[in-house]
Amino acid sequence: MRFTVLAAALSLSFAAQAKEGMWVPQQLPEIAGPLAQAGLELDPQQLADLTGDPMGAVVALGGCTASFVSPQGLVVTNHHCAYGAIQLNSTPERNLMDIGFNAATMADEVSAGPNARVYVMDRISDVTERMRGAAGDLQGLERQKKLEETQKAIIAECEADAGYRCTVYNFFGGQTYRLFRQIEIRDVRLVYAPPGGVGSFGGDVDNWMWPRHTGDFSFYRAYVGPDGKPAPYSEDNVPFQPNQYLKLADQPLEAGDFVMVAGYPGSTARYALYDEFRAVQDWQYPVVGAHLKALIAMIDAASATNPDIAVKYATTVRGWNNSTKNWDGQLNGFRRTDAAGHKQREEQAVLAWLRSRGREGRAALDAHAQLVRIAADSAKTRERDLVIGQLGNTGLLGNVRSLYRLSIERAKPNAERAQGYQERDLPAFEGGVRQLERRFHPEMEKQLLAYWFAEYLKLPAGQRIPAVDAWIGGNDAAAVARALDAAYASTTLATTDARLALLQSDRAAFESSEDPLAKLAVALMPELLALEDVGRARAGDNNRFRPVYLAAVQDYKRSRGESVYPDANLSLRLTFGNVVGYVPRDGVEHTPFTSIDGLVAKHTGEEPFDAPQALIDTAAAMSAEEKARIPVNFLSDLDITGGNSGSPVLDARGRLVGLAFDGNWESVSSNWVFDPVMTRMISVDHRFMLWVMRDVFPAPRLLEEMGQ
Amino acid sequence: MRFTVLAAALSLSFAAQAKEGMWVPQQLPEIAGPLAQAGLELDPQQLADLTGDPMGAVVALGGCTASFVSPQGLVVTNHHCAYGAIQLNSTPERNLMDIGFNAATMADEVSAGPNARVYVMDRISDVTERMRGAAGDLQGLERQKKLEETQKAIIAECEADAGYRCTVYNFFGGQTYRLFRQIEIRDVRLVYAPPGGVGSFGGDVDNWMWPRHTGDFSFYRAYVGPDGKPAPYSEDNVPFQPNQYLKLADQPLEAGDFVMVAGYPGSTARYALYDEFRAVQDWQYPVVGAHLKALIAMIDAASATNPDIAVKYATTVRGWNNSTKNWDGQLNGFRRTDAAGHKQREEQAVLAWLRSRGREGRAALDAHAQLVRIAADSAKTRERDLVIGQLGNTGLLGNVRSLYRLSIERAKPNAERAQGYQERDLPAFEGGVRQLERRFHPEMEKQLLAYWFAEYLKLPAGQRIPAVDAWIGGNDAAAVARALDAAYASTTLATTDARLALLQSDRAAFESSEDPLAKLAVALMPELLALEDVGRARAGDNNRFRPVYLAAVQDYKRSRGESVYPDANLSLRLTFGNVVGYVPRDGVEHTPFTSIDGLVAKHTGEEPFDAPQALIDTAAAMSAEEKARIPVNFLSDLDITGGNSGSPVLDARGRLVGLAFDGNWESVSSNWVFDPVMTRMISVDHRFMLWVMRDVFPAPRLLEEMGQ
Repeated sequence: MRFTVLAAALSLSFAAQAKEGMWVPQQLPEIAGPLAQAGLELDPQQLADLTGDPMGAVVALGGCTASFVSPQGLVVTNHHCAYGAIQLNSTPERNLMDIGFNAATMADEVSAGPNARVYVMDRISDVTERMRGAAGDLQGLERQKKLEETQKAIIAECEADAGYRCTVYNFFGGQTYRLFRQIEIRDVRLVYAPPGGVGSFGGDVDNWMWPRHTGDFSFYRAYVGPDGKPAPYSEDNVPFQPNQYLKLADQPLEAGDFVMVAGYPGSTARYALYDEFRAVQDWQYPVVGAHLKALIAMIDAASATNPDIAVKYATTVRGWNNSTKNWDGQLNGFRRTDAAGHKQREEQAVLAWLRSRGREGRAALDAHAQLVRIAADSAKTRERDLVIGQLGNTGLLGNVRSLYRLSIERAKPNAERAQGYQERDLPAFEGGVRQLERRFHPEMEKQLLAYWFAEYLKLPAGQRIPAVDAWIGGNDAAAVARALDAAYASTTLATTDARLALLQSDRAAFESSEDPLAKLAVALMPELLALEDVGRARAGDNNRFRPVYLAAVQDYKRSRGESVYPDANLSLRLTFGNVVGYVPRDGVEHTPFTSIDGLVAKHTGEEPFDAPQALIDTAAAMSAEEKARIPVNFLSDLDITGGNSGSPVLDARGRLVGLAFDGNWESVSSNWVFDPVMTRMISVDHRFMLWVMRDVFPAPRLLEEMGQ
Repeated sequence: MRFTVLAAALSLSFAAQAKEGMWVPQQLPEIAGPLAQAGLELDPQQLADLTGDPMGAVVALGGCTASFVSPQGLVVTNHHCAYGAIQLNSTPERNLMDIGFNAATMADEVSAGPNARVYVMDRISDVTERMRGAAGDLQGLERQKKLEETQKAIIAECEADAGYRCTVYNFFGGQTYRLFRQIEIRDVRLVYAPPGGVGSFGGDVDNWMWPRHTGDFSFYRAYVGPDGKPAPYSEDNVPFQPNQYLKLADQPLEAGDFVMVAGYPGSTARYALYDEFRAVQDWQYPVVGAHLKALIAMIDAASATNPDIAVKYATTVRGWNNSTKNWDGQLNGFRRTDAAGHKQREEQAVLAWLRSRGREGRAALDAHAQLVRIAADSAKTRERDLVIGQLGNTGLLGNVRSLYRLSIERAKPNAERAQGYQERDLPAFEGGVRQLERRFHPEMEKQLLAYWFAEYLKLPAGQRIPAVDAWIGGNDAAAVARALDAAYASTTLATTDARLALLQSDRAAFESSEDPLAKLAVALMPELLALEDVGRARAGDNNRFRPVYLAAVQDYKRSRGESVYPDANLSLRLTFGNVVGYVPRDGVEHTPFTSIDGLVAKHTGEEPFDAPQALIDTAAAMSAEEKARIPVNFLSDLDITGGNSGSPVLDARGRLVGLAFDGNWESVSSNWVFDPVMTRMISVDHRFMLWVMRDVFPAPRLLEEMGQ
């Protein structure tokens, strides 16, 4: 029966099980065998050297991943990772998102902004003993404070050498702590971004979608002082010379080939409890998602008639669109894979196993019960906590709120200040203050605040904040509108200079200020601090119980021969697998490569399907054979998530074959419950990148620099 | 390079060139070789016997195709071909579209309606000489009248034997004429229709779509008088015993397998001129399509609050939806394949070839110029002709219009009457009158007429009809509304009895009638008759010139080794090819079979994705292996069009493997310019039909009758 044989063949070529696992570097011995089996041609031990070739070339951008691709500090990452820098250097007359950017010489490379960073791995050390020792048997807020204090001390010691950024990562909810020391390069410049019709071809329509035809790549360069040390932007700075940089592949990547990704995935919740999962599935994604969609609709409507709002809120809308589309995809995936049932059954199996172990299982069972209680507590006031938190957490009011908080923290010794308000954070803080003028429009901000105030007014009286009620001066939408109109008409804090001055302001000055936005920040602050402490107390208790329970989960999984790796936490991970398509639904197969012809077929000339004419013309002049050698995007069964964007995709010999930039729509639910059937990573092929840089939006200088 | 190899493999498995060709039975010698090559295991000559096995089992329903599948006259066709019969036997309380119909015994089989027919092939004869001889050198209307008269005479002679329906088909615009004599079975009964959640699963959403999961099949039975001769419905009638009936396949159909279809495709226009094509692409599909969409929206809105309107206009809306979706698909396909460019280049090549032939090519070049002129003439008044034609071409006014026309025609000797108004047409005419009460709601009809009157009022004064203007009694929407309200409030023709009485009415009675709808019909008629004569004159001229030009096209194509078969014209055709998927767009493949699991995955419980619970439960209880043996729908690269619906799909041994019921969305433009890359036929697999009849909506009586 050929039908049956075909079905079997399909399961080989398309229904390959995706390779679950975001492995920490310390797990290399454990995965050396599987790596080799999947097709790695390097000695797996070579990957263990995080400052060697190729791992030493992989860098973090803070939220994205990137890699060095030349000895002169040239960095390649996604176009969407450089979106902020592209926007920062754009004007309404000269929108680099549309026309692209291509520095003709090094002197033409422009600052990616005061907050742009390139973090280069220096070393990783284990600080578990010190962290856990400090926390001891402390509970709740006390425990959390001790953990924060210890972490700050570790970081302060680590950063005593100038030019480093240190971060403590916790694994399995506090089971292990590792200190990352990274060279913090603070002068990052935009070198090359293709036109938006390449770099974000397909835009939000194609976001998370396959088939995909996006040239989602751009180039930065890392600069350091003339002494070779990290320094803020200066004309005197020189290109950073990395120890390692990636070489481009010299073998064509093909279906079935081994690929691996090193990067900084942000967050997964695969070890979350069933109850925690339900809170997300039943409340956060549908309810908070509906709020975001309402806000997006408001901005879209305002943008339609006001291009200034369109430009200033583009990043915000893009982020919210990304989130809501992702959440909707996750909800879809939860239904498709019965994630809730799966999670519940797995958790029940662990609990049953623990019960079967008698006394040995008791501690973990108790810890589980405590974690369930914490989750229930936090669900009780979630609607209210959301609204309070959202009242001005962005824009001008958000800026003022942070500046007031800074004035409070500045009264304390540096080491005792809240995270984000220490001396080390001040440059980034100042950058945020300066960038606001490109992200803020008073009319839009009033509308967004009015939305959240309307939600606030729906809260039961007991959940309201008297000082905020007083600030509004009424109990309905009209009062909110009056208060907001008055506040934004009379505030003196809308200018960058005024806010920069506040960086030095003290608490008393804030609290006696007559500025209406300062008054609102002051009115909100006690409740925000209280909420923060509630959160910290929960974090402290979580830190007590989660490692106990997760140790049991790990034991259970190991007893069944299952792989165990910690949830993503922005720390460096390796994931590997093969180039392979998938079957999205009965009767349809998604093949692993897309083509230039497919891109041209999608081109309508209308944004977001507006490829540059040069691309259309170049493609039209090529033979089918030439085009067949240049795939646009490709699929593989690797396990990535947000934060992996821009990660280099390496072939079996450690050569760069592309950049990860997305997961397929069906994969997003894997953040909670991994779906091996449909989880696929989407990458831009380096052959397409080179073609664009050669023939579409030429950058001969960079090609030469990369040895092409 | 595996990428390249894969691409090559794809071109074998998915990008196979569809098999263009709707072959007339007389072409069997010409296609015997290709048939064998494609995999036919029968002797091709066996297919030449149109009353033998298997061709003798294939029957026409008038607009659909069907086939005998038992010696007791059991007929299988599509569910959507039996839609009218299912609707006719439905009531608001007992909607057979939803719940299905299953006659427990032969006595429970119900009439498919007075107009339902099964046409069984008796013989085909060539009447070219007689038709062309009669037309001679006549021109325009005179020529057309002579052709009609001759055709009527031929048909009358042929139908002199009672019980036959005779039809003259013209090929290549009048190059060849063939007379079909078919046994006309007039007592057709509905035997079995699965619930709508099987038979039209996916509904209009999935219409023209792949992947598809529709059980689009149902059963009729042909009945004849006790003497074995065709007779109208009577309780005394007995099942017709066909000479041939199809046997079900006993080998599983698999990807790549040979399949063929015999059926009655309605209409293609592959030999249309470039200018004729442009009129359709630039005007009919976009402009007339927009009118239909506006009408559908009106009916949908009314149906939402009035279930009676929903039921009565369901068939109308379904038809219009089908048309507009088809037209939109054609427009898409025209763009995708550059159909206009292709058509223009091909026509220019023919003309250049003719010019190169000097004197020999002159007649065809002249004929081409004449055809271009005719097309230009007809485009000049198309907006107006559309509006006049649409003023009451359906519903009650349409019925009255036809009855008035009948009274005009009845004054003539039978042979001289217009087609559709002869004695032989009267039973069907009466059926139409009777069926109206199930298709008509005055409020809806007034709305639809108001729409066309609004278009009418936009016509320039010179294009208006004074008698119609007088009937309206004004020049704006308010006047139209008043006239329609008054007409439908006072007409006495809304009852079936009143209209049946009009079947005998004479012209004078009509013209003196005070009934407002009769008055409107009388006001419209002179212009309708004039339009008809303009059309007939054009048809006459077309008949003079098209065979001359198309003979040249045929010569040109044969000189290039290309296949030549006439456009579809509702006459019997054979098409063959293989089971194969396709690549709808870059990165996506459509595989040739769909599965029960895929159907279940689409099931939402909401119409049109509302599979019966019995199907869901049965599927849930089956093993993966059992389900793998029962594909739902399948693709093949055959060349079909509307009218082929219900056609039996036969395997290499002439056994029934399924029923054709649709083409894919990408194929619809092939009616004008065949696209070998994406044209696919969609069939329901007989294994799914049997499964439904065994386990979902059981019909053990029919299974036994078919030897299952």
